[in-house]
Amino acid sequence: MQRYFIPEENWEEDEVTIANDDAHHISRVMRSQPDDKIICNHPRGQAAICDISEITGDHVRAVISEWLDETAELPLEITIAQGLPKSDKMDLVLKKGTELGAYAFIPVQTDRSVVSWDDKKMEKKMNRYRKIAKEASEQSHRNKIPHIQPLTVLNGLVNESDSYEFKLFAYEEEAKTEKFQSFGKIVNNMAPDDRVLIVIGPEGGFSPQEADLLKQNDFLPVRLGPRILRTETAAMYALASISYQFEELGC
Amino acid sequence: MQRYFIPEENWEEDEVTIANDDAHHISRVMRSQPDDKIICNHPRGQAAICDISEITGDHVRAVISEWLDETAELPLEITIAQGLPKSDKMDLVLKKGTELGAYAFIPVQTDRSVVSWDDKKMEKKMNRYRKIAKEASEQSHRNKIPHIQPLTVLNGLVNESDSYEFKLFAYEEEAKTEKFQSFGKIVNNMAPDDRVLIVIGPEGGFSPQEADLLKQNDFLPVRLGPRILRTETAAMYALASISYQFEELGC
Repeated sequence: MQRYFIPEENWEEDEVTIANDDAHHISRVMRSQPDDKIICNHPRGQAAICDISEITGDHVRAVISEWLDETAELPLEITIAQGLPKSDKMDLVLKKGTELGAYAFIPVQTDRSVVSWDDKKMEKKMNRYRKIAKEASEQSHRNKIPHIQPLTVLNGLVNESDSYEFKLFAYEEEAKTEKFQSFGKIVNNMAPDDRVLIVIGPEGGFSPQEADLLKQNDFLPVRLGPRILRTETAAMYALASISYQFEELGC
Repeated sequence: MQRYFIPEENWEEDEVTIANDDAHHISRVMRSQPDDKIICNHPRGQAAICDISEITGDHVRAVISEWLDETAELPLEITIAQGLPKSDKMDLVLKKGTELGAYAFIPVQTDRSVVSWDDKKMEKKMNRYRKIAKEASEQSHRNKIPHIQPLTVLNGLVNESDSYEFKLFAYEEEAKTEKFQSFGKIVNNMAPDDRVLIVIGPEGGFSPQEADLLKQNDFLPVRLGPRILRTETAAMYALASISYQFEELGC
């Protein structure tokens, strides 16, 4: 059954109104008819099976038929702070990171990020990113759409990191040392509901100054396996591992 | 230091000859000079630091200076049998799967694969895939390039699966049942040197007949977390989890 995330203001007690792209998707792409069923997700995380009652040129109405008792959310809140990578790699991080259960994403301007965004580009990028996260959430049957926070600099990220129970950063140099921090041991110490911030450098990783800044502010350097991962693969490794630990090993 | 996988016939006792694309990469892209150092990987898995001794128009020679005692190979041999996906998704499976440590890839024609390859397309595809696997192996500092086996049908794969210690298939329906096979428990039973075959369906997954065929031949259906992953994400989840279990949790 097709899923749609519906903004809070479009929910009534026993009905939802679907507008814009989603209405178009229902009427033109899926070619749905009245009485067809869809799943509507509320921004707070609940989902309901709904029966389509009306399809007009620009909106669709559907009657709530059954609230679902299901969740596909990771039990921990994992925020991925991604150093701005080249070309369209951020799209891949958002798509795959959403499928793999990320709670939020923060794009970060770092010393070795070769791209930079002006204000105009920023708004366009943010709209695009929100759309990617929404569509990947629908496709992967998630209950919530990950938040996408505005672009920040590393210093700003560090200054606002006190609320996380765990603060990690992927550090390639760590993989080369004998006494690296074991990512497995750190994840083993995590518990459901913990808020975890994982910072990943762009191509070329963090500068030594950035690594020092992170270490001084209690970010733990971790390696993500012994192979050198591309920047866009690091978030996937971290999220899949945490999902495996809490959603599959725990079973 | 840049890495190159050098075919067996180009190794002499204390020297290697580098030809074709790699020679071009050394002379034109890296603009290396005699006495610069590179790492050369032998197909058997060993790697050596080599000093460039000669750069000509079409080849590079380098003297072996030091054999390295290093390995970045997953301790298990994980073969990913991927149902042929649409567009260029197989490229992504190969790139990320190589970074994440896959031992081999087998493209599989399945009931719901919408693409098919003729003989001409096949050769072109295989060359492309071998190039992707080689470059991703170099970039991720692996000791071995994953094998890419010829396209097969599911029946053929099943008939040649006796040599694997573990045979799994990703089955979306499994995620919906109460008593699903825990991927975590199965991975926990694996040991170093085990040979593991993981079969992943294309978009739309396996047909019921295919799922029956796999089950009848002792392939274990597994879910890979509770979210619905796109076909190209399944291999990444499986490989990252197995790496996490054996290379990070074990630390």
